[in-house]
Amino acid sequence: MNSPLDKIKSNVRAITAYTLAPLEAPIKINQNENPFGMPFALKEKVMLRAMKHDWARYPDFVPASLLEKLATYAGWRADGVMAGNGSNEMIQSVVNSIVEKGVRVVLPEPTFSVYRQVVNVAGGEIISVPLNEDLTFNFPRLASKIVTSKADLAIICSPNNPTGCTISARDLATIARNSDGIIVVDQAYREFDDGDFVPLLDEYKNLVILRTFSKAMAMGGLRVGYCLAAPELIREFNKTKMPYSLNFFSMTAAEIALENLHLLRPLVEKIRLEGERLFAELQKIEGLSPVPSAANFFCVKTAIPPKQLFEALHARGILIRDVSKAPMLSEYVRISVGAPEENDKLIASLKEIFEP
Amino acid sequence: MNSPLDKIKSNVRAITAYTLAPLEAPIKINQNENPFGMPFALKEKVMLRAMKHDWARYPDFVPASLLEKLATYAGWRADGVMAGNGSNEMIQSVVNSIVEKGVRVVLPEPTFSVYRQVVNVAGGEIISVPLNEDLTFNFPRLASKIVTSKADLAIICSPNNPTGCTISARDLATIARNSDGIIVVDQAYREFDDGDFVPLLDEYKNLVILRTFSKAMAMGGLRVGYCLAAPELIREFNKTKMPYSLNFFSMTAAEIALENLHLLRPLVEKIRLEGERLFAELQKIEGLSPVPSAANFFCVKTAIPPKQLFEALHARGILIRDVSKAPMLSEYVRISVGAPEENDKLIASLKEIFEP
Repeated sequence: MNSPLDKIKSNVRAITAYTLAPLEAPIKINQNENPFGMPFALKEKVMLRAMKHDWARYPDFVPASLLEKLATYAGWRADGVMAGNGSNEMIQSVVNSIVEKGVRVVLPEPTFSVYRQVVNVAGGEIISVPLNEDLTFNFPRLASKIVTSKADLAIICSPNNPTGCTISARDLATIARNSDGIIVVDQAYREFDDGDFVPLLDEYKNLVILRTFSKAMAMGGLRVGYCLAAPELIREFNKTKMPYSLNFFSMTAAEIALENLHLLRPLVEKIRLEGERLFAELQKIEGLSPVPSAANFFCVKTAIPPKQLFEALHARGILIRDVSKAPMLSEYVRISVGAPEENDKLIASLKEIFEP
Repeated sequence: MNSPLDKIKSNVRAITAYTLAPLEAPIKINQNENPFGMPFALKEKVMLRAMKHDWARYPDFVPASLLEKLATYAGWRADGVMAGNGSNEMIQSVVNSIVEKGVRVVLPEPTFSVYRQVVNVAGGEIISVPLNEDLTFNFPRLASKIVTSKADLAIICSPNNPTGCTISARDLATIARNSDGIIVVDQAYREFDDGDFVPLLDEYKNLVILRTFSKAMAMGGLRVGYCLAAPELIREFNKTKMPYSLNFFSMTAAEIALENLHLLRPLVEKIRLEGERLFAELQKIEGLSPVPSAANFFCVKTAIPPKQLFEALHARGILIRDVSKAPMLSEYVRISVGAPEENDKLIASLKEIFEP
């Protein structure tokens, strides 16, 4: 007797379904979200605009007004921008444009797990380049692997999730110059970091930058991502992206966020300052060793098993991310920077656990 | 000199980018939307719930509450439901779970163009089965092609966009019984039609039903689709769907729609009655010949070139869809059922054009 499951591709069958136990806690610092939320004044503006809109109508086929605003914000040309349903959809579109069975994809790892998932579904062959032991990018190895493997695609997350390490614009340029492949740099945490790769786009037509509204822009619940690249690449990526994938409400919210950056920038600055304070405090706790990070989270080495630390914090009303199943990270957890009082509570709880 | 475009898969390069000129008109009957819009009372409920929500937080990993409501609404089990960013994302997920280079996919055509696009991107081989000359499904040919081609996947749209023809539950059961492949039936227009295929899901584990909130449910702007199938298939499809692809706002709106069906059902009934009236009126116009349809639109044969008719109506403030580039439809346009006064204006305009 045949089973319908026989028709599912073997590479999909082989994937372990990604699950996340629906745990709740008063302090949620497990998804690198903006702890301050979207300013109420912005929510009101979005609501007012949305109430006037006819929800039954499809969004614009090309969200021209948003693309213009994104281009201005990023310092790039509007015909070199694609926007969609979170940067996840941007990753999927780029991968589905390039990867089929046997195509080689270089991934520095550990990194964001969606890259591996999407490449696996597309049938690609992943060439994993480990980070250095101190969880920084191994630039010489990464650069040479991309060239020697003749990879058609490399995906570099900078600042890297979950480690927080970055690649410099100079190193990225070297990689883009020496490779025939498409080089994707996922800058989901761009606003927390000083690295700007947009000036490279004009010279390196094989460079693709991904960004999101889910982190600094306080819109994780609304799923808006975008992609910056040469217009001729954007044209191809648009063929593999689903039409109308960005709903009118999220589109409206993204536009209003870009129109009101003066309300969001101070929140980012607060998160940066809190991050510095949190890092210093974590360093002081015996048994914990935070990794320097350019983003709004820290990968933290723990002297007690990560699962045990996760549970001890959860019992105290704090949700962090146990990343110990990732390569190289068996002794690590990831902690997002919260609001000041959340960070206070976290530090007090960690002291209870490690310095009882 | 290598171009980055060389890295784009040849099947993607070969796709003609789908474009839609951003035309506007007071009467928009080109996308089969609900012409009455979402009732204001529902919009208010959504807004109130959304204002209390923290937009910076990711949506639930599994939208359990929505899945339960969808299961109740459809008469199926919650672990056999997947929801996401429009039925487009459901199509993409199913296709990416099954199709790779060389996999055969049967499509009755003409049909919704996204199927062909997604299968092409995945590298599948499309076996097109033409409709009958009267634009109904050719059931014997379709059933036998699915079996003899050993297709791994068939996608049947019922009611079919853009023709409005349907497959019966009995015929669908015969196809599902005789094929080893996965049989997808896209019921985007389910609410306008009496055909219910959910009772077949228990017996035919290879049957997959897709539905949407974009048509009858008046939420085209919010992009919510869902998929009903055996739980073991849903588990696999979830691996190829992007996590968090359904934003919290659209999720909230879908839940509120399902909680308030008494406000939406009368609109659907109005559209059905208007559809009957419009069909009768179109039949009376010399030079036009509407095709019977189980959905909220009609494929209409026109004695003047479709492009000319499109333009003549656009000049009168009415936007319809020129479908003449689809196979078999060189003499057809597609017209959605509008609100009563929109249909009046349409009929008056058509009379001006055809019976001057």
